[in-house]
Amino acid sequence: MARINSNYLKLKAGYLFPEIGRRVAAFCQDNPEARVIRLGIGDVTEPLAPAIVKAMHAAVDDMTRHETFRGYGPEQGYDFLRNAIAEHDYKSRGTVVAPDEIFVSDGSKCDTGNILDIFGSDNVIAVTDPVYPVYVDTNVMAGNTGEGDAGGRYGGIVYLPATAENDFVPAKPDRKVDLIYLCYPNNPTGTVATRETLQSWIRYARENDAIILYDAAYEAYITDPKIPHSIYEIDGARDVAIEFRSFSKTAGFTGVRCAFAVIPKELTGTTADGKRQAIHPLWNRRHTTKFNGVSYVVQRGAEAVYSPEGREQVKQTIGFYLTNAKLLREGLQEVGIKVYGGVNAPYVWLQTPNRVPSWDFFDQLLRKAHLVGTPGSGFGAAGEGYFRLSAFNSRANVEEAVTRFQKLVA
Amino acid sequence: MARINSNYLKLKAGYLFPEIGRRVAAFCQDNPEARVIRLGIGDVTEPLAPAIVKAMHAAVDDMTRHETFRGYGPEQGYDFLRNAIAEHDYKSRGTVVAPDEIFVSDGSKCDTGNILDIFGSDNVIAVTDPVYPVYVDTNVMAGNTGEGDAGGRYGGIVYLPATAENDFVPAKPDRKVDLIYLCYPNNPTGTVATRETLQSWIRYARENDAIILYDAAYEAYITDPKIPHSIYEIDGARDVAIEFRSFSKTAGFTGVRCAFAVIPKELTGTTADGKRQAIHPLWNRRHTTKFNGVSYVVQRGAEAVYSPEGREQVKQTIGFYLTNAKLLREGLQEVGIKVYGGVNAPYVWLQTPNRVPSWDFFDQLLRKAHLVGTPGSGFGAAGEGYFRLSAFNSRANVEEAVTRFQKLVA
Repeated sequence: MARINSNYLKLKAGYLFPEIGRRVAAFCQDNPEARVIRLGIGDVTEPLAPAIVKAMHAAVDDMTRHETFRGYGPEQGYDFLRNAIAEHDYKSRGTVVAPDEIFVSDGSKCDTGNILDIFGSDNVIAVTDPVYPVYVDTNVMAGNTGEGDAGGRYGGIVYLPATAENDFVPAKPDRKVDLIYLCYPNNPTGTVATRETLQSWIRYARENDAIILYDAAYEAYITDPKIPHSIYEIDGARDVAIEFRSFSKTAGFTGVRCAFAVIPKELTGTTADGKRQAIHPLWNRRHTTKFNGVSYVVQRGAEAVYSPEGREQVKQTIGFYLTNAKLLREGLQEVGIKVYGGVNAPYVWLQTPNRVPSWDFFDQLLRKAHLVGTPGSGFGAAGEGYFRLSAFNSRANVEEAVTRFQKLVA
Repeated sequence: MARINSNYLKLKAGYLFPEIGRRVAAFCQDNPEARVIRLGIGDVTEPLAPAIVKAMHAAVDDMTRHETFRGYGPEQGYDFLRNAIAEHDYKSRGTVVAPDEIFVSDGSKCDTGNILDIFGSDNVIAVTDPVYPVYVDTNVMAGNTGEGDAGGRYGGIVYLPATAENDFVPAKPDRKVDLIYLCYPNNPTGTVATRETLQSWIRYARENDAIILYDAAYEAYITDPKIPHSIYEIDGARDVAIEFRSFSKTAGFTGVRCAFAVIPKELTGTTADGKRQAIHPLWNRRHTTKFNGVSYVVQRGAEAVYSPEGREQVKQTIGFYLTNAKLLREGLQEVGIKVYGGVNAPYVWLQTPNRVPSWDFFDQLLRKAHLVGTPGSGFGAAGEGYFRLSAFNSRANVEEAVTRFQKLVA
C-alpha cells in the first residue's frame, strides 16, 4: 500500500497566511460594506517599474520569432541574469560571489523549503522565534522535528527567542545545532543584524561546523549604511553560509516570481560516514533534476532591475514603502504603542495594547477597525503579544489605517 | 555538524540532458564549422501562438496599473486557469475533474519530483524501463532506493521493461509495488497506452492498494481517437491515480513554464499506523508551504491556450511537429531502421543499426552526421540499443537530418 509521509500529520493548523485569508474572507462575506485595509500578508501593491515592464514586453516578443524564441533555459538561470546579480548585488559592494554560485529560482519560499532536500534528517535545527513559518513547517515535513505542542513549537527544534527583552538579538543556542535559519532584515520583527551580530553567528557556525541559512529577502530596505546587505560582507561567511535573495520585495515580483540562492563553492557538509562534501554540486543536482528554470520572460524582467533606469525606479518604490513604514511607526507611537522595526524593513512589529493575545487583537482590529495585520503568535510562541503590520499599501490606505488604529486604541 | 543527504551520492553521473549538452558543447568547440542539428532534448522550437502572446502582453500591462496589478496569487493557481483546465481538458472529454483538484505549477519535472515529498520512504517504486530519468533520480534522492549498478539500475526499484519484444507493453510487477510511474504517450518510446492497458493498471492498483503517477505531458499529440488522453477517462482511476499535465509540449511553454497536477479528492494513502489518509490535503499543504504560485503573466498565457483562437493555433503547431515525426519515422524506415512511436507522440524511438550501444551511436551520429539525439540507455537499461529522436525542429532541419541519417546508415 502507498504510505504517506506521516510527518505532515504533525503540522498544526494551516499555514499562517491562508488562515488569515480565511478569516478575512469570512468577515468580508458577513460585512460586505466594510472597507477592509489589508496590512497582513507582506504583499507589494505598487505597479512594476517601467524598465521591468519594457523588458518583459520585449521578452514576450522574443517568443514570437524563431530566431529569438527560447525553450528550456539553463535550470540555474540565464547568464545574463546571474552575471547581473553577481555584479550589482555582490561585486559592487565589495563581496565576491561568482555567477555560477547563483541559482535563479521562482521564489525564496521555494528555496528555503527545498534546500532541506540536500541535507540529512539527523541535523539539529535552530530558528529564531518569532520566525517565518516556512522554515519550521518544511522541517516538520522533512521529519526533522518531533510533535508540535499547543503553543506551536515542535520537539527537536531549538528556538531562539527574539523579543523586546533582548532587544531582538537572540542568544546563541544552548546546545550544538547544525542548521541555523537567520533572516535579516527580519521578517516579522523588522529588526536588522549588525556586523558584530553576524560575525558572532559566523564564529558560532565555524566552531560548531554548522551551516547558516541566511534569508536576505528584505535587504533592499536597508537604509543604515552600517548594516550589511549580505552575509558574505562578513569574513568567513563563504565557508558556512547559504544566502537567499528575492525580487519579490525588491522589485514588486510577488506575482512575477523570481529569486535566487547563493551556494559558495567552499561550503561543505558531512556525509553519513564523516567525509566532507561540497554543498554546491548537491544543490546543482537538485536544481537541475527537480526544477526546470524560471520563465524566460520573468528572468528578463529581473535583469532589468539592474539597469540604470530599473535601479532608480525600484529605489523610488522602496522609498515609498519605507515612508509608509515610518508613518505607521510614528502614528502608533503617538498613541503609546511600543513599536519596533520599520526603519530598515517594510514591517512594523508592535506590542499589542495590554499584551492581549495576538489572535484576539487580530480579530478585534478586523471587527472594529476593519484592519488586517498578522498575529505575532503565528510566527512562533515568542511572538505572542506582538503584531505585524506591513507597509505595503497605498499612502491613502496607510494614513487611513493609522487613523483607524489610533481611534481604536485611544 | 551539518549532515548532507547521502542519498545524493548514489546518483550516477549527471542528469541525462546536461550530459548530452556537455558532449555537444565540446564537439562544437572543436568543430566550430559544423552545422549541428539537435534532435536530442525534447525542446520545442516554434514560436508561441499569437493568442498566447497577446494574453501575456495584456498581463504584463495589468502589472503597470494599481487597479489590475497582481501580487501573490493563490498558490494552487488562479481560478481563471483552473476553471479553463477543468472545462477543456476534462469536462469536454466526459471526465470529471473539479477545479480545486487541479494544482497549477511551473513544470511537470518539478511536480513529478516534488510529489515524493508527501509519500513515505518505505514505498516500493515501479517504473517502466526505459523511463524519464527524473522519476528514478528523485527516488534515489528521497532515499527510496539502494545503490546503483553499472547499467544505471538502482536496488529496490522494480523495473518493468518495455521493448520491441513485448510491443512496449510492460508486464505487471512480479511483486507488490506501492507507487507506479506511467507516462503515456510515452517518453522516450513514443508509444501509447490503450484503454485496455490502462484498465489493467487501474485494476492492479486497486488490488494492491497502489497509486499510479500518470504523466500525460504529451497527450496533445494523440491522433488516434481510441487512445485515452487522461487516465481519468477510465473508470476507477480517481481512487488510485494522480495525473500530471504540462503546457510545455502542448503550447510551446518549455521556456515559459506552466504545468499542473490533478489530485482527485477520493485518492487515499495509508499512514504509518495503518489509517487511510486523503492525498489531496497533503499535496495542498505541500504546494502552499513550499511553492508560491506560477507567474501571473504565465498563467494568463496558459489560459489563452484554451481560447478558441489559442486552441486552433496550438493545434496547428502540434500538427506541424507530428508531420516532422512522420518524416523522421518514414525516412528512417526507408533505410531499414526499425522505428517505433512518432504517430501519437513527438518522439521517434529507433533501434540502433546492428544494435550498437546507444552512447556509441550518439557519438557516431554527432561526429559523422552532426546530429544530436538521445541515447536510449540514458533512459534505462532496457533502452540500450535504442535511440530517441525528437520531432521538435524546423521542417528544413528535419528534412536535412533525415538525409544525413540515411547517408550515414546507407
